[in-house]
Amino acid sequence: MGFGMATHLVKQGYSVTGFDVWQPTLDRFQAAGGLTASTPAAAVGNKDYCVCMVATAQQAQAVLLDGQDPALPALPKGATLLLCSTVPCAYVQSLAKQLVERGRGDILLIDAPVSGGATRAAEGTLSIMAGAPDAAIEKGQFLLRELSDEQKLYIVQGGIGAGSNMKMVHQVLAANQILGASEAMGFAARLGLDLPAASQAVLKSDGWAWMLEHRLPRMLTAPEFKPIASALTIILKDAGIITNEAMRYGFPTPMTSTAEQVFFAGLGRGYGPDDDSGMIRVYTEGKDHVGNVQGQTESDEEKLNLVVALQKGINLCSAAESLAFAKKCDLDLDQVLNLCINAAGGSTVLQTVGPEIVKLYRGQDLATDAEGLGAFGQQLQKAVEEAQRLKVPLYLGTQALNLIQLALQHALPGVEKVPSALVAKVWGR
Amino acid sequence: MGFGMATHLVKQGYSVTGFDVWQPTLDRFQAAGGLTASTPAAAVGNKDYCVCMVATAQQAQAVLLDGQDPALPALPKGATLLLCSTVPCAYVQSLAKQLVERGRGDILLIDAPVSGGATRAAEGTLSIMAGAPDAAIEKGQFLLRELSDEQKLYIVQGGIGAGSNMKMVHQVLAANQILGASEAMGFAARLGLDLPAASQAVLKSDGWAWMLEHRLPRMLTAPEFKPIASALTIILKDAGIITNEAMRYGFPTPMTSTAEQVFFAGLGRGYGPDDDSGMIRVYTEGKDHVGNVQGQTESDEEKLNLVVALQKGINLCSAAESLAFAKKCDLDLDQVLNLCINAAGGSTVLQTVGPEIVKLYRGQDLATDAEGLGAFGQQLQKAVEEAQRLKVPLYLGTQALNLIQLALQHALPGVEKVPSALVAKVWGR
Repeated sequence: MGFGMATHLVKQGYSVTGFDVWQPTLDRFQAAGGLTASTPAAAVGNKDYCVCMVATAQQAQAVLLDGQDPALPALPKGATLLLCSTVPCAYVQSLAKQLVERGRGDILLIDAPVSGGATRAAEGTLSIMAGAPDAAIEKGQFLLRELSDEQKLYIVQGGIGAGSNMKMVHQVLAANQILGASEAMGFAARLGLDLPAASQAVLKSDGWAWMLEHRLPRMLTAPEFKPIASALTIILKDAGIITNEAMRYGFPTPMTSTAEQVFFAGLGRGYGPDDDSGMIRVYTEGKDHVGNVQGQTESDEEKLNLVVALQKGINLCSAAESLAFAKKCDLDLDQVLNLCINAAGGSTVLQTVGPEIVKLYRGQDLATDAEGLGAFGQQLQKAVEEAQRLKVPLYLGTQALNLIQLALQHALPGVEKVPSALVAKVWGR
Repeated sequence: MGFGMATHLVKQGYSVTGFDVWQPTLDRFQAAGGLTASTPAAAVGNKDYCVCMVATAQQAQAVLLDGQDPALPALPKGATLLLCSTVPCAYVQSLAKQLVERGRGDILLIDAPVSGGATRAAEGTLSIMAGAPDAAIEKGQFLLRELSDEQKLYIVQGGIGAGSNMKMVHQVLAANQILGASEAMGFAARLGLDLPAASQAVLKSDGWAWMLEHRLPRMLTAPEFKPIASALTIILKDAGIITNEAMRYGFPTPMTSTAEQVFFAGLGRGYGPDDDSGMIRVYTEGKDHVGNVQGQTESDEEKLNLVVALQKGINLCSAAESLAFAKKCDLDLDQVLNLCINAAGGSTVLQTVGPEIVKLYRGQDLATDAEGLGAFGQQLQKAVEEAQRLKVPLYLGTQALNLIQLALQHALPGVEKVPSALVAKVWGR
């Protein structure tokens, strides 16, 4: 993504000097009209703006401060630094502190994680969630605008750390819906459905999710799950940021921590370097060992309904976990919802139930929804029961069902139709 | 187990006629002094007592009613029938109904599932949970006494179905603690601990569970996980009864349904026919694929504390789920606790926190416990964080942590030390 962002800026007429540990990338950047440097320090010397786009907080710390010829000491006074990597809120806050401790409080740091993938990076149409003091935002805004879609630049209130928190709650949706796509399609395969046809039907249903739509082509047409658009190790890292930050707050993340364990299982099977859509194998590979199993659904239509119900249940509980965590992080819930609906975390359920969850948190009256939480649970339960007959693990689906049931246990007795948004109550008052 | 029960009765001087689909078992039974028959009907003709001990409800239905030469039509008027298999409550209730519908309401059915394994079956020291109308219990009691330890015969109030429900809530502990043993020892292995030494230390700690103690010898000394004491497919079947019955009630079983998905994963890996202690492989086999990982604990003592914390967290949430489900099934909670503490579901945590959970349900004042739920969670969290660094899946451990955190989210604010028993509130009011 860093390569795409840099070449886009070159195309817009900026003079950009790039550094990467991988020489072929630098060669490609040169061919695209960029300048290159052989150390981080050499890349940023005398530059008023530095964009850091690496994979992890450890890498950021190395390239900026602790590695060989790091960037920060070489930055001129008053330079603006955009950290665009997905890192924990705690890290970017510690970076701000380190700047001051090392006498570089003059640097204007912007906490600006992005979303959208390599293609949108190269087009300058990323989603960006930027948090920083006003002075830094003012100076960096033109650059943020160059890199993002004009509808998708979010200036997040709360300063350094708030951008990362915004990205983090978005990634709750991403992590669960990436695994959800594999779980739904793996289940479809074990039901005996024709995957290309079934997947098109699911995309047209209320079970739609951005991640499902974007993982499907790679999942169904690249049996080796290569070349990769996004590796399993990347979303696993993001899931780890979520569960780790949540543990720091003592906040429960039953969906994401389930997804994380299954990602660990995939990693342990050797799928780490593959495209994350390769997680479908965790669901399909057991087929030959389960013995003689017999489902109860017969028609393709019935089977499809189960897959849609599974997607909807996962998307509902992902939405609830994401918004509950956003509330815990004191983020602006309207902004979270706007961002997530229009980014890779989007789903039909988020669009319909998400606003109701926000109302619930504000103590506003909820709309009566068409189905109610009970119906959501009943449909999902049919999928879980069929998976049980076929002996397919539905890690996220059963977790979602448990959460819906927990919510229903705590709902007021006598309420005929519990609004779907009430599932969010499970995560806390 | 049926073979052990039958030979024990022969030793006690009873005339016993056995039937089994596997001829070598019948030959062994003859060698042990038993009589044999070639059909179910031939085995029970003119017998006042029939004990049915098969693996599943489907098998029971076949041998008693729907298979070739079934037993029931051949039973003399007023005979007593003990169904000792682990079956859903719904099945044994349907069997009672079928007896009446087929004009054999004269048969005295006893719903009498057992626990204890093949060795205790052969010694006549099983745990038996028997539910039936008084007249049936009266007639069958001598036989129940012959087969059980005198301290471990539980006459369960509630008639047909109550015995099966009692067994089911016991199996909540069994299923989670069987997988828990593999999860704890798999984690210990990934921490780099010496398993024989570590396991002895865990057995001496508050993390003790009967299942851990009994799975360890096979887990650590039989690399092929054969010969089996109890196959993975058996506990998977029991887990399925639990989650299925729970779904029928709309009752959440977050621990058991997690265990069930992991059992499905083990089944899909081909571990179904192996001893259930072979589930440790689900945790150890990923080691070579996770890349360069680095934990933060250094001493064996610190590592051991993490394994103990993991066991304790799993045992706490298993206890809470078991007792919450027992309450849902209207079982006598004192009897449940007495049975489970003294059977294969026993654990140190069940002994200490179990009685407090029962008090909680009765609205009685809780004792202040030494640690409190917060401390329970903090210790478990350290284990989960270290597993995250090592990229080991802790399916049950993370689920237990989520449940503890959910309970703490809902605890009254300002309460300094939340009693551990309060975790049970997550399952419902």
